Amino acid sequence: MSQTDPLSPSVAEMAEALIACPSVTPAAGPVFDCLEAQLAPQGFDVIRFVAGDAPDGPVENLLAIRRGPEGTRHFAFAGHVDVVPPGEGWTSAPFAPEIRGELLYGRGAVDMKGSIAAMVCATRHIPREAGTISFVITGDEEGPAKFGTVALIEKMREIAVIPDLCLVGEPTSVNRLGDMAKIGRRGSVNIFLDVEGVQGHVAYPHLADNPITRLVAMLAELKAMPLDDGTEWFQPSNLEVTDLTVGNPAHNVIPAKASARISIRFNDRHTAQDLADRVSEIAQRHGGTARALISGEAFLTQPGAFSSLVSAAIEAETGITPELSTSGGTSDARFLKDLSPVIEFGLCNATMHKRDEAVALADLEMLVGIYRRIALAALRM
Amino acid sequence: MSQTDPLSPSVAEMAEALIACPSVTPAAGPVFDCLEAQLAPQGFDVIRFVAGDAPDGPVENLLAIRRGPEGTRHFAFAGHVDVVPPGEGWTSAPFAPEIRGELLYGRGAVDMKGSIAAMVCATRHIPREAGTISFVITGDEEGPAKFGTVALIEKMREIAVIPDLCLVGEPTSVNRLGDMAKIGRRGSVNIFLDVEGVQGHVAYPHLADNPITRLVAMLAELKAMPLDDGTEWFQPSNLEVTDLTVGNPAHNVIPAKASARISIRFNDRHTAQDLADRVSEIAQRHGGTARALISGEAFLTQPGAFSSLVSAAIEAETGITPELSTSGGTSDARFLKDLSPVIEFGLCNATMHKRDEAVALADLEMLVGIYRRIALAALRM
Ligand SMILES: [Zn+2]
Ligand SMILES: [Zn+2]
Repeated sequence: MSQTDPLSPSVAEMAEALIACPSVTPAAGPVFDCLEAQLAPQGFDVIRFVAGDAPDGPVENLLAIRRGPEGTRHFAFAGHVDVVPPGEGWTSAPFAPEIRGELLYGRGAVDMKGSIAAMVCATRHIPREAGTISFVITGDEEGPAKFGTVALIEKMREIAVIPDLCLVGEPTSVNRLGDMAKIGRRGSVNIFLDVEGVQGHVAYPHLADNPITRLVAMLAELKAMPLDDGTEWFQPSNLEVTDLTVGNPAHNVIPAKASARISIRFNDRHTAQDLADRVSEIAQRHGGTARALISGEAFLTQPGAFSSLVSAAIEAETGITPELSTSGGTSDARFLKDLSPVIEFGLCNATMHKRDEAVALADLEMLVGIYRRIALAALRM
Repeated sequence: MSQTDPLSPSVAEMAEALIACPSVTPAAGPVFDCLEAQLAPQGFDVIRFVAGDAPDGPVENLLAIRRGPEGTRHFAFAGHVDVVPPGEGWTSAPFAPEIRGELLYGRGAVDMKGSIAAMVCATRHIPREAGTISFVITGDEEGPAKFGTVALIEKMREIAVIPDLCLVGEPTSVNRLGDMAKIGRRGSVNIFLDVEGVQGHVAYPHLADNPITRLVAMLAELKAMPLDDGTEWFQPSNLEVTDLTVGNPAHNVIPAKASARISIRFNDRHTAQDLADRVSEIAQRHGGTARALISGEAFLTQPGAFSSLVSAAIEAETGITPELSTSGGTSDARFLKDLSPVIEFGLCNATMHKRDEAVALADLEMLVGIYRRIALAALRM
């Protein structure tokens, strides 16, 4: 790492410093110390707290607030400092940041320590008079996410510090920095299907009740269940069967139970509970049961003033107009949307969760500019 | 056990002696010694041999032949001396035969040591001049059955001793001794279905190819595949899905592979290979593969002179007319039918393979009479 003023590192130095703190989910300690050490000198009040118990906790979180004058608006940067496990096969050590050519390598380079470094650098030159700025940073986004952003939202409500607009720094760009921002996400629900039958010998099927027969008919009907054809902003909702379980080693035995798991990714035409109810009705009609585990509801920040200022900031720095998308998996934006309109924008995601995760140094510099423009415009909105 | 002439035990004593030789499948040694000790004095030539290697062997078998005069017919009694494991919860020890009330208790009482005891007693008073009688007895009918009756048939072909008619002593009676005989059995084939897909994230189903979707459609089509409506002598063929396997713990992952196992019990309208081919065609159409494991073909001993003499023998001793059935699982008759017409008749099967397996002493006595009448009539046919 090159040596410059420790109080004003470059965005690359800041990203390197964060990467150098190993923080496989859930993150704790040093990576938060590193972030706090940069935010406190900028005048942020830093609140750190631990939430939750085993098995999905404890989780460390950081809320940093720099209050603007009375009556000004509040803009929040949100994100996470935990990373997914590095896996095998890296060219250089995943937690020893290394610049090779125009790229900075390390676990979290794009998802999303590079992005957090850019947020920190972006706020450095925004005057306090512009308004309130906050950092909503969790140590558990890549894990169960039960005591991360959810606990941060509770904390913000507790101290009555609610943002007017929020930007999540997930790596939303695809081929070039700026080509995509997310204005929504599909919802996600997993449903566990069980069918109990009556065990018996295959030679006497009339004395048994094969649960697999009913499960297969149920799954065929579920797969054919009409959802929607997509909306202006969302692709069609989709249902996948992700597991089947019987576990019957006896060739001549009709088993007593059969199970399946389905995953539905759905747009804002549905709620998770409505879908769970529809699946449950079909499951029951075939003599089975359904138990839903809701990961998140669909949400959409309707394109308008907020998305326009984000697009304008991106265009000003990169020259390209972002596609406003709702594709992909879930993110913590699914929780933050309850606080304020939320948009996600960040680095290129080609190497996220992979070996040799890397960010272009030029992208980091541009992202600082984009984030600064977004924050300033949002505070004026 | 009561003490009488060891060379002419009663049928109950003979059954007790066989039960007292533990012979959980595969049977070997003492139980065959016990049988040989009774057949040799009756003038049978006893051939004992061991067939096969691990894992489905070695298996001990016994072939006993008492040749009649040149030009007379040959009638065979067939059966097994191995038994299924006793399991828990017996009132008295499973291999310590015990008479309580009118019943003799012990593992194998009805399946089928009682029946073999009745065969031995039945031949005692049939004169050698009546014709050739043989005992075709294996130590592995309840197990893989790969080196049992199959090896006995080879041996009989080797020494050119082929029966004209064969009676298998399986417990075919249901509520009362004599109420059912079997003139055929359905065939059985297990088919293993595999579908390979392309693994992926549920949020990006267009980049994956879910093998479960195709497996479910395949199974729905297989379950709806027309087989038959039954025949004069057979119930309809039937297909059951007996296992489903994916084993995918990740809620957000579309798995790479899905498998199922089906079991088809079929009548003489089909051959196992025809069915395997039809299943394979459907499996391939859904992008999967099918691998068949054939347990046995369907067979039918068309009702006629043989079944009439069996029915007459049963009626003469019990006063009831047996139903001629093809129901139930497979038996070694599926192999023996290649040698000669074969019919199965034996004790009541209510307690077979269960704890406290028991036979009515009166049934044992009647069965001796029935078997004697069948043998005599068969030799005259
Ligand atoms: Zn992330
Ligand atoms: Zn048996």
